[in-house]
Amino acid sequence: MTTQRPSSFLESEIREQPEVLDRLLQSETERVFELAQSLRNKGEDAGDRPYCFDYVVLAARGSSDNAARYAQYLFGYHNRLPVSLATASLLTMYERPPRLARALVIGISQSGQSPDIVGVLAEARRQGQATIAITNDPQSPLASAAEHLIPLGAGPEKSIAATKTYTLSLGALALLSAALENDRDRLNELHKLPVIMERTFPPILAELHRVERYRYMSHCVVIGRGFNYATAFEVALKIKELTRTITEPYSSADFHHGPIAMVHRGFPIMLVAPSGAVIDDIRQLVVTLKRLEAELLTISDDADLLADANLAFPIPEGLPEWLTPLVTVIPGQFFAMALAQARGLNADHPQGLKKVTETM
Amino acid sequence: MTTQRPSSFLESEIREQPEVLDRLLQSETERVFELAQSLRNKGEDAGDRPYCFDYVVLAARGSSDNAARYAQYLFGYHNRLPVSLATASLLTMYERPPRLARALVIGISQSGQSPDIVGVLAEARRQGQATIAITNDPQSPLASAAEHLIPLGAGPEKSIAATKTYTLSLGALALLSAALENDRDRLNELHKLPVIMERTFPPILAELHRVERYRYMSHCVVIGRGFNYATAFEVALKIKELTRTITEPYSSADFHHGPIAMVHRGFPIMLVAPSGAVIDDIRQLVVTLKRLEAELLTISDDADLLADANLAFPIPEGLPEWLTPLVTVIPGQFFAMALAQARGLNADHPQGLKKVTETM
Repeated sequence: MTTQRPSSFLESEIREQPEVLDRLLQSETERVFELAQSLRNKGEDAGDRPYCFDYVVLAARGSSDNAARYAQYLFGYHNRLPVSLATASLLTMYERPPRLARALVIGISQSGQSPDIVGVLAEARRQGQATIAITNDPQSPLASAAEHLIPLGAGPEKSIAATKTYTLSLGALALLSAALENDRDRLNELHKLPVIMERTFPPILAELHRVERYRYMSHCVVIGRGFNYATAFEVALKIKELTRTITEPYSSADFHHGPIAMVHRGFPIMLVAPSGAVIDDIRQLVVTLKRLEAELLTISDDADLLADANLAFPIPEGLPEWLTPLVTVIPGQFFAMALAQARGLNADHPQGLKKVTETM
Repeated sequence: MTTQRPSSFLESEIREQPEVLDRLLQSETERVFELAQSLRNKGEDAGDRPYCFDYVVLAARGSSDNAARYAQYLFGYHNRLPVSLATASLLTMYERPPRLARALVIGISQSGQSPDIVGVLAEARRQGQATIAITNDPQSPLASAAEHLIPLGAGPEKSIAATKTYTLSLGALALLSAALENDRDRLNELHKLPVIMERTFPPILAELHRVERYRYMSHCVVIGRGFNYATAFEVALKIKELTRTITEPYSSADFHHGPIAMVHRGFPIMLVAPSGAVIDDIRQLVVTLKRLEAELLTISDDADLLADANLAFPIPEGLPEWLTPLVTVIPGQFFAMALAQARGLNADHPQGLKKVTETM
């Protein structure tokens, strides 16, 4: 399958992900470890407060905002840092920047152009706080606004829907998290990931012909939790952008708080369910969803969950949970691409969208 | 209309909102101002850091999580505090509580029962941080876990869909924000609100017969921004819970980043658009949406926006922007109720939902 010519820039860029992640890790690992070293608290209270900041503020939009959701769990779990997703409009629409004492402020943007994200970083730097830009354009306003830069080095992303810059943003955040802890074991796990990502392709590609089943699907829901809450948002966004399907992301916890009332026979629900701390929660939800006769599309390494699915996307077993979002998103990207194709839509240039969206 | 017997507990509880808000303000104002006094930084660095905390962490689920979204803008704009919405599952599913140095941690829960929210507050208190519970049950585990309590005093909420406890949670947060600044002008604005809320009812009730137009609507989108980003989420949740319609909330900024690709002729979009800093942004979006021939349902005090709508819900003019979410949600609540009625659904007991959802 891999020698077949890609049908679109989108498909090429999805397939490039292992290679560009490997390149990012090769070129940026040592620099990010040095950056993390400079952010450590060297004072007497370093036991309770290991960094020169107490919490993290992330500024991002669109797919990058979904990468920020990953960072909430990543920095929360591994670095025990509270993470706030910035409400950039407070700065741009309301002109009321927050006081950012002891915050690390990270801006994520493929293009590095969005004025609201640049504004948050510039304000944080003005207040003397630590700032990092994660962007695919090292010459962009975002890169200039921040004190530190992690360049994604994805090469041009020609498809309007972000794919490789999304997984690279996750990779950059994962690298930063490991570096802040100076954790070489986690770094080794991360360095093994490109090979594992490559291995996910054949079983997904083998199932893609079945996506035609969803040709006339008008809506769907994507559910993930914990580290993969971000994946649910990102896959839902790809499906919306590429296929014009009404698609809503949920955590399995929130889905019980109201939205489950929508589910009826045949209601399509995609589950992002790799093995890990939250898989039992998804399993319990599946019991209810099967009783309601929902249609299940499942991304998992768990044989039982895959067996219960109407469409199953298997992923490799044994992945460290913190890295699963870099793998689980891939079937979702391919699914959205294949559904766009089944509907005769242009996968590279969805109607009504631009690559760079400048929000104030 | 107001003397007519309510059709359901839901309708009674929607109509009770001005009265219970007034009661909350009468009984809690001075206590909350004293609580705020105790949270002020009395040290030498009080100019830069006015409180004994640097940022706020909010723990909540469902409608209460939408109240927390309001708090992001409220505390961000008026108190210049960064706000983080807690990822409670880090504590309950992953058993990795964050380090909460210099955080104020607020738990919001109607029932005060959800173990994950209680867990976040208990952990924060264990770490010696300031904690506040906002709940309708002063005997609940959440009330016990927190050092401070703001009881909502809504009386029993019999409908499964939260309405009065939602607006009261906003009211409690608004009171706390004004109290932290010791701002008696804002307090006066808040105290005038129950009368204004009451005035919103007649024009909404006069339009409710037209909700039949949406009897066969399968999906919709609700858009708000800034302070009313929360309203978009809460109205979308009511529509989902009560009417089983696929309904997705967006900020007008994020809607441009992909989801606008879904919009076609007749696509129903509810706009939460009171006058304020973000209304121009909504106006610009309306130009695009009209070109796409979307169906517009508009909650606003702006004559032009109302004139452009297919269904217009006028709200009183001259509201202070920070308080608009307590008013704009009311037409959304009535809309969801009327649509449930038009579909012959039980508005008090939506299928598949429980009043108290205990998430881990």
